[in-house]
Amino acid sequence: MLEDTVVLAAVTVLAVLEQAYFSLQVIYARRKYSVSPPATSGPPEFDRIFRAQANCSEYFPIFITLLWTSGVFLSQALSSLCGLLYLYGRFLYFRGYSQSSLGRLAPLYFSARVLWTLIALSCLGVVLSFFRVHLNVDVLHELGSALRLV
Amino acid sequence: MLEDTVVLAAVTVLAVLEQAYFSLQVIYARRKYSVSPPATSGPPEFDRIFRAQANCSEYFPIFITLLWTSGVFLSQALSSLCGLLYLYGRFLYFRGYSQSSLGRLAPLYFSARVLWTLIALSCLGVVLSFFRVHLNVDVLHELGSALRLV
Amino acid sequence: MLEDTVVLAAVTVLAVLEQAYFSLQVIYARRKYSVSPPATSGPPEFDRIFRAQANCSEYFPIFITLLWTSGVFLSQALSSLCGLLYLYGRFLYFRGYSQSSLGRLAPLYFSARVLWTLIALSCLGVVLSFFRVHLNVDVLHELGSALRLV
Repeated sequence: MLEDTVVLAAVTVLAVLEQAYFSLQVIYARRKYSVSPPATSGPPEFDRIFRAQANCSEYFPIFITLLWTSGVFLSQALSSLCGLLYLYGRFLYFRGYSQSSLGRLAPLYFSARVLWTLIALSCLGVVLSFFRVHLNVDVLHELGSALRLV
Repeated sequence: MLEDTVVLAAVTVLAVLEQAYFSLQVIYARRKYSVSPPATSGPPEFDRIFRAQANCSEYFPIFITLLWTSGVFLSQALSSLCGLLYLYGRFLYFRGYSQSSLGRLAPLYFSARVLWTLIALSCLGVVLSFFRVHLNVDVLHELGSALRLV
Repeated sequence: MLEDTVVLAAVTVLAVLEQAYFSLQVIYARRKYSVSPPATSGPPEFDRIFRAQANCSEYFPIFITLLWTSGVFLSQALSSLCGLLYLYGRFLYFRGYSQSSLGRLAPLYFSARVLWTLIALSCLGVVLSFFRVHLNVDVLHELGSALRLV
């Protein structure tokens, strides 16, 4: 089983390291703009960095959940590839949002599209597994046979 | 192993879709009440929708963790059933909170009770698995035998 | 497989119970300082408790992810031990932050160090598993043989 998940685990660790990087940026911004906890707002520059990190944190569990669902139930390779794209999109989002509110939009749309792809892969994986396990039908195999007959 | 988890995975995907729905509601509310990021407060109508989504996001990883712990270590069927009830409760909570602060209370208490049930199922699953694996005692089987003797 | 994860599951349930405890403290603080939802700020005493809980919630999915990655891919025992230390650190953090902003710092640094340890264990687990699964090399075994030769 480790064989089918070790790449997912590598992407997962990378995702945690990215979150650690975002958290460090908030700590630096707190010092730079003198915003001491428990305060969570200050000048717009600080607010954007704080919100960028909060948004990435909010989506972290959703991302990890989808990465593993689509990776275990459909394809480790496809899921890990989407995972890397998502993490790259989130890096651009964080950098863009730090500079301006507008700068967050393009990478936000990009990472949302990757998440929707992961949702689609997860759904497909669940449906195919359900057919295989509970109805004893291997849909992909049947499709292949049907196509060969045509 | 897929056999024992595919329904959990289906409930998981449903939970992600519900979170996506809540996020979209916040985006619509931002447009309707003209609250542009990084701002996170505006008129009370917006604040309630924003907080409803934030609260659901905060509990999402706790819910997923309990769903899989009780589902893997005790019973996929029981855990998935609680999962569906929880997601339904969160939907009512979001709709109620959008309308008034009071409207969030009844469904909030309901979903809290479902979460406590999932905690209880997880504890039971962990304890029974621990007995079976480390002490080589199948508690449920022993209980059954004891009852038959009585 | 349950044998290798039941202690991780026990630490996981404990982590959820700790989050439940923090959430209850916020509910009590809302009553005590009359801060009704959707408001999220009030007197400094309330703000500190609210932020302490928010910070613990934000790190909850990261903690669970690392606990399971290092526990499954490296060592259940090491990972669970770090997990218990982390939960203890978070308890001290919450109590310290409730009393003063300064009081949060020492336990915050402590739990951050534990998280970095879990990141290191996860990385090591992923790298060793990758060598074993994809390159068919058991690094720890080879190291042992090499040391015996010296």
